[in-house]
Amino acid sequence: MFKAIITVKLRPSILDPEGKAIEHALQSLDYTALSCVRIGKRIELQVDLDDRAAAEAAVDEACRKLLANTVMEDYTFELQKA
Amino acid sequence: MFKAIITVKLRPSILDPEGKAIEHALQSLDYTALSCVRIGKRIELQVDLDDRAAAEAAVDEACRKLLANTVMEDYTFELQKA
Repeated sequence: MFKAIITVKLRPSILDPEGKAIEHALQSLDYTALSCVRIGKRIELQVDLDDRAAAEAAVDEACRKLLANTVMEDYTFELQKA
Repeated sequence: MFKAIITVKLRPSILDPEGKAIEHALQSLDYTALSCVRIGKRIELQVDLDDRAAAEAAVDEACRKLLANTVMEDYTFELQKA
């Protein structure tokens, strides 16, 4: 059994309007030292497989098919023994 | 100058409907080994301060005031020298 922690980020070349909105809000609140905001997703899930290679394959396939839009997003993940 | 990587997660006691929807989609796609999906946010931003303590204070305050809803969410962050 593993716990998977998946990070999905917009590719660097893709504009991030949510990040821009937050950056603008930070400037309005006088946090002028904070900039270049990029928003991604962090997905945690449980993998009910005992073999690490099988667990990696399952999570990678789920990322490609459902969790990330690979045209616009990059994903990485790590597995922790649970 | 630092790069801050902020993780915002729903508190464990709070229901995560987005996670439930993804879990349901995973089951429909026959990824039966994957369960207990929880969705969080991962925010990257640049901190234009040279002092680590000042940078930590600025990011922590921004998290509390803008980036996280501390009633429902927990946040953690790390600073990387950029």
